[in-house]
Amino acid sequence: MPTATLPQHYTDLIALQRESGTLGSIAANISWDQETYMPAGGAGARAEQSSLLAGIIHERNTSSKLGDLLAQCEADADLSDESTPEGASLREMRRDYDLATKLPTDLVKALALAQSTAQETWKKSRANNDFPSFVDDLTKVLDLTREKGECYGYKEGGEVYDALINEYEPDTTAKEIEVVFTPLRDRLSAFIKDLTENGTAPKVDFLHRSIAVEKQHAFGQAITAQLGFDYNTGRLDTTTHPFCSGFGPGDTRMTTRYEPTNFPDAVGSTMHECGHGLYEQGLPKGGALFGTPLAAAVSLGIHESQSRMWENMVGRGKPFWNWALPVANKHFDNAFEDIDLDTFVKSMNTCTPSFIRVESDESTYNLHVMLRFELERAMINGDLAIKDLPGAWNEKFKNFLGLDVPDDTTGCLQDVHWSFGLVGYFPTYTLGNLYAAQMWETINETIPDLDAQMAKGEFGALLSWLRENIHQHGRRYSAAQLCQRATGKPLDAAPLMRHLERRVKPAYCM
Amino acid sequence: MPTATLPQHYTDLIALQRESGTLGSIAANISWDQETYMPAGGAGARAEQSSLLAGIIHERNTSSKLGDLLAQCEADADLSDESTPEGASLREMRRDYDLATKLPTDLVKALALAQSTAQETWKKSRANNDFPSFVDDLTKVLDLTREKGECYGYKEGGEVYDALINEYEPDTTAKEIEVVFTPLRDRLSAFIKDLTENGTAPKVDFLHRSIAVEKQHAFGQAITAQLGFDYNTGRLDTTTHPFCSGFGPGDTRMTTRYEPTNFPDAVGSTMHECGHGLYEQGLPKGGALFGTPLAAAVSLGIHESQSRMWENMVGRGKPFWNWALPVANKHFDNAFEDIDLDTFVKSMNTCTPSFIRVESDESTYNLHVMLRFELERAMINGDLAIKDLPGAWNEKFKNFLGLDVPDDTTGCLQDVHWSFGLVGYFPTYTLGNLYAAQMWETINETIPDLDAQMAKGEFGALLSWLRENIHQHGRRYSAAQLCQRATGKPLDAAPLMRHLERRVKPAYCM
Repeated sequence: MPTATLPQHYTDLIALQRESGTLGSIAANISWDQETYMPAGGAGARAEQSSLLAGIIHERNTSSKLGDLLAQCEADADLSDESTPEGASLREMRRDYDLATKLPTDLVKALALAQSTAQETWKKSRANNDFPSFVDDLTKVLDLTREKGECYGYKEGGEVYDALINEYEPDTTAKEIEVVFTPLRDRLSAFIKDLTENGTAPKVDFLHRSIAVEKQHAFGQAITAQLGFDYNTGRLDTTTHPFCSGFGPGDTRMTTRYEPTNFPDAVGSTMHECGHGLYEQGLPKGGALFGTPLAAAVSLGIHESQSRMWENMVGRGKPFWNWALPVANKHFDNAFEDIDLDTFVKSMNTCTPSFIRVESDESTYNLHVMLRFELERAMINGDLAIKDLPGAWNEKFKNFLGLDVPDDTTGCLQDVHWSFGLVGYFPTYTLGNLYAAQMWETINETIPDLDAQMAKGEFGALLSWLRENIHQHGRRYSAAQLCQRATGKPLDAAPLMRHLERRVKPAYCM
Repeated sequence: MPTATLPQHYTDLIALQRESGTLGSIAANISWDQETYMPAGGAGARAEQSSLLAGIIHERNTSSKLGDLLAQCEADADLSDESTPEGASLREMRRDYDLATKLPTDLVKALALAQSTAQETWKKSRANNDFPSFVDDLTKVLDLTREKGECYGYKEGGEVYDALINEYEPDTTAKEIEVVFTPLRDRLSAFIKDLTENGTAPKVDFLHRSIAVEKQHAFGQAITAQLGFDYNTGRLDTTTHPFCSGFGPGDTRMTTRYEPTNFPDAVGSTMHECGHGLYEQGLPKGGALFGTPLAAAVSLGIHESQSRMWENMVGRGKPFWNWALPVANKHFDNAFEDIDLDTFVKSMNTCTPSFIRVESDESTYNLHVMLRFELERAMINGDLAIKDLPGAWNEKFKNFLGLDVPDDTTGCLQDVHWSFGLVGYFPTYTLGNLYAAQMWETINETIPDLDAQMAKGEFGALLSWLRENIHQHGRRYSAAQLCQRATGKPLDAAPLMRHLERRVKPAYCM
């Protein structure tokens, strides 16, 4: 309906949402500051600031005033039609309000305490390779997380895991994920086995030539600007763990990391965060929508699809390096002058089974994720006793990646996520890869000369497609709907397999 | 009284204050970010964030809950004795609460609008050297500012100007300032006249040798660390206008500016902000006091006394440069190797009447301030019609500094302050210089070998004196009481004159 005729209860609701969004953007700013420039001594005060602000935001997001306005709008037939932007916005506000109000305060507190305790225990257990010492705390966190899921609720015929995914990947179920993951898992395992047994691994030593950090930073800024990241409304800084935070209208902050002898890590991180950054810059935050679901990212999986597409589909491809390798040589005093384009591109597409998820390559990464999905689902559903996690982990690891896990520190104790009760979070990483691959096929059909464009350093058509099909919609459609609209098909494992076969096999001379 | 026995209404009050302090520190952080790292495109959202946060803070600072707790505590004889820390804290909380609640909302809004309009007009009027076009807006702002002062109220026998100073320099009156300023003004005018007519200006050309900005930054960090600034709880960054912001416990941010050919400007700015920073780091914010007046700076004048002492008393003296010149040569590839210590120190102590306050030197600066004090006092008291400001300005300028002001852009239109309704603010700059000079005499009596210590790069005894006599007290005592306690005397103009005579006359070979 035209803005002029929007009723007071709707405009009041939007105003409240905008304030929450603004407070959230302040919280994002001080959190960014904590990772980038805050002196070490400021940590205590920062925790107090973040906690106070979180409390104020939570109070607003659970207020009866918000609940009343929301109910009024939902009862207003002119507004609540989900096929309109207003109706879709209301649907998503309801989701947020329910997520924020459905948990009893006692449970929230108990979970916070259990997470904090478990995190400390995890640090020690991991350091000492002592899983048994972690069992009680992890059990407690998962019990409370399960309770949380039950409070949220899930559809009939579903499982508690669905309720937990909902926080990260709304409108997705464990069953739907399983249907896509299972064929991918088997094909991927076979693919990797074939490559490692029958292929020839590409040379990568030259990638570790020493390149000054400042030069890597200038190169990272140059390429991300070319990809379309707007530095008038954003920044690139350095942190231990790269991340991207879209503060709000006109302010998106990416971070990356540099090591003189690990240029590919920096390029990968920078292009990955740039993908997140381009999504944030493409969300319609500029006008009246900021603070509403229509100006927010739809899911972690879709967010990750954007980062993965620029990192992998673009950033490991020959067309990109046709343009970027001369740029790199210009920035790096011709450090790779003796490396031809094909050799360089091959080096960016290795596939080596290894134990640590965050160090794994584009192909094996998904097996790390799927292993976690199966295990956390089994644990939360009560099908796997926590004490049996190491055995189950090691067995799956052998099946999926063909490796014998030497110890739990290198195995099931490597990630902090479960101590935080993050269940349903891991699969979004692979969902991101799958969405990216499926979009990538459609994009290449829609822009047949995309490779030629990229080879000249032109990324505008690609970015326009993403802006139009993904970014501009915010949370108007679910991730699955967005995928269907953009690609004409439901999510499927085949495009990712086709992508990896096209990209990695040649690197292994197969 | 011992903490264990503090009544609930007091601990509740302190908890409220701490939350306000914490919110204030968040506001300070996003404001710092705005000046340092925010991309240009983030300005609109930042204004919205700052305004929302200011509204939340104002709501809390004027809440009836706060007022009730305050009244309860004031009625509690065990708490309200001003000679105790709790009593002094209550006195100051009452001041803050009254300042926050005494203004009618309509006046606050009218003033905000008038200030915003006047500021825009001022920009144009200054650019066009067109004072008449500024008269109406300035009149409006000053009328509303006068009304604000009347709402605040002032002691019998006083004047509305007292009420306005109270925001910046509590417990100080126009009359008290006049008593100190008038003799200083006359002695300073004569002193400057004598120097410029009978002295020989020192050579300064070598100060403008080109020094790379990164090297100046490293030098600035090195000397401020040596002065005692703790970089574990603070930072030094770069902004157009240097400032210092003490966010809260363990986090103090200084900024400075660099020009390759203006090394003395950077050193002066850095040491100035370091003085502010050392004060902020010395306030007792670490424990339970953060957010209360006992952990806050007492007045702008005292804050400025700290910055001026390190910038001028320390930073333009021979002892400091005895240590710092070799350090500078080390950082700057021996840029000043051919300059002997005496020549260098002389160059740091010039005295040249000029038109622009912010570019003026240690001696003439105070005449710029005193001129503004006299004029703003006359305007606010209705003794000077706004339209007559340029004439009055130029006449005083001739009397004080011996110069004919060529135009209003270089004259009464140079500062933005009055468009903001900042009346009673300017004098705090010179009060700072006066407090600094008076403390400096006491410090040198208490630490007879201070010069020898500084010549070796030792500043610990000086900082300890400031910590003990100024920093640790927060707002427990008024600025005047602090001065009396620390120096044994009320504020007087003589120490500043003696300091300038000792320091600047030798630079002019007199």
